[in-house]
Amino acid sequence: MKASILFVAFGLTGAAPAAKLQTPNDIVAAAPASAWKPIPADDLLVMDLANGGRIVIQLAPAFAPVHVANIRALARGHYWDGATVYRVQDNYVAQWGQNESDKPWPAGVAAKPPAEYTRPLKGLSITPLGSPDAYAPGAGFAAGWPVAYSPKGGWADLTHCYASVGVGRDLSPDTGTGGELYAVIGQAPRQLDRNIALVGRVVDGIEHLSSLPRGTEALGMYKDKAEDVPIASVRLASDIPEAARPAYEYMDTASASFARYLHVRANRHDDFYIRPAGGVDLCNVQVPVRKKVLTAARPE
Amino acid sequence: MKASILFVAFGLTGAAPAAKLQTPNDIVAAAPASAWKPIPADDLLVMDLANGGRIVIQLAPAFAPVHVANIRALARGHYWDGATVYRVQDNYVAQWGQNESDKPWPAGVAAKPPAEYTRPLKGLSITPLGSPDAYAPGAGFAAGWPVAYSPKGGWADLTHCYASVGVGRDLSPDTGTGGELYAVIGQAPRQLDRNIALVGRVVDGIEHLSSLPRGTEALGMYKDKAEDVPIASVRLASDIPEAARPAYEYMDTASASFARYLHVRANRHDDFYIRPAGGVDLCNVQVPVRKKVLTAARPE
Repeated sequence: MKASILFVAFGLTGAAPAAKLQTPNDIVAAAPASAWKPIPADDLLVMDLANGGRIVIQLAPAFAPVHVANIRALARGHYWDGATVYRVQDNYVAQWGQNESDKPWPAGVAAKPPAEYTRPLKGLSITPLGSPDAYAPGAGFAAGWPVAYSPKGGWADLTHCYASVGVGRDLSPDTGTGGELYAVIGQAPRQLDRNIALVGRVVDGIEHLSSLPRGTEALGMYKDKAEDVPIASVRLASDIPEAARPAYEYMDTASASFARYLHVRANRHDDFYIRPAGGVDLCNVQVPVRKKVLTAARPE
Repeated sequence: MKASILFVAFGLTGAAPAAKLQTPNDIVAAAPASAWKPIPADDLLVMDLANGGRIVIQLAPAFAPVHVANIRALARGHYWDGATVYRVQDNYVAQWGQNESDKPWPAGVAAKPPAEYTRPLKGLSITPLGSPDAYAPGAGFAAGWPVAYSPKGGWADLTHCYASVGVGRDLSPDTGTGGELYAVIGQAPRQLDRNIALVGRVVDGIEHLSSLPRGTEALGMYKDKAEDVPIASVRLASDIPEAARPAYEYMDTASASFARYLHVRANRHDDFYIRPAGGVDLCNVQVPVRKKVLTAARPE
């Protein structure tokens, strides 16, 4: 599971002393079943690279419904067959799609989606981060997602954190269709918040994008077509036969387990740490996501 | 130059309209010679991978003098000959050194350096970030480095940003000698600030570390020795013959150019951006560093 390996205690060895204080991973491991929520199969986009790497993306229809509907239509219409990862810019993004192709849109794709860069704050139940944020009046978590928000402005938006997935676009008023997507592979480029449509996050396999060779052209584009990384398929989990379908669940950001996890992320006091920070950045509190082991119906 | 490719305008195409507003790169390109300061050759550590990749690290003796002295002695004593990059953890760090080797320390290496996790605030001239920071009372820039600080506590420290280089250690009170180093290759792990010795930053070639395959063992360790990435040499630039010696300069963080650069980083209003954030994270204001073209003494 990705979330667990991201933040294990740091150090060359890790001999555990007798009175071990809780790490974020300890809290995740101890969370009861009630603290977890399943990700609907219609919200999971499964991208298989031709080299065998699998990247699983959770879509966020509550934040960018038209773009997410487009992405579902593109996946169902096999739009990305023959697509590639053609841009990998260090400390920024990996981007994929049908670059420089005029492949027609499948049925049901809105050519000019609205600018879904924010949504109404109303309707979201927010767990505040509890630390200051440089990019918005408020920051926290809602429905399993990191969000920025403004009580005064009445808006909320998904934030650009590591592994966030957004829609490549040209200059405004173009918002992109969803045919070209990018994932963040470096320091959170929060300056893009509210300037582009975020549609989800990579919940598994980000390393297949983040470890790709960097493009040497402007914007991290690969110089030669031969460098492009071919994509074998992009499918919704709901279109994969149930026996082979991957499933994931995320920690409920309104749960007591998440509150404890957030507190410990801001106050690391386990073995390695001698001075807890007393604060944490929104993008350093990755919402735990884990692969669900399917207990499929079996004849007994 | 690394700094310039990190933050070029985002988007698939980039046709420039007539009235173009300044980007951070425009400001860097227009900065006068007086805005730049050379990095002393004794502060540049040049690590060549056996595969040909070169990583250049600027050392920070003003923040961790004993650890930096150790690193210089280790380089001069060829301690890292035969060393490897043995750990690459996604969204965290790449780490290298003589893992699991009992190679003796060269002369002049302090076996137990002090905990150089902070330094006195006094003596530093700080350009404030101007945005809130989740990890410290104050954040800004001093002598070309991103720093956190506390006027009340009287301390300042280097911060863990993308490409920051620190000293691997075991549990406290061990502070590490400098023989095992790591570079940040993901979201700034600021929770490590003031818990470990930072000694510098990668100013060129970070992509040779960030694009390495991720280790599949705990902490991102490579499973098999065969996966380790061999290091050909680690030398101080001052020990490289002058004609072949790489040289770099950084933007003076007390200069008017840097003030303008910082302002625009917090208020992107160039072509692509429709809503400037009005704030910026410390680690999203990478201090510009550029390779210096040597005008070596030539017979005329």
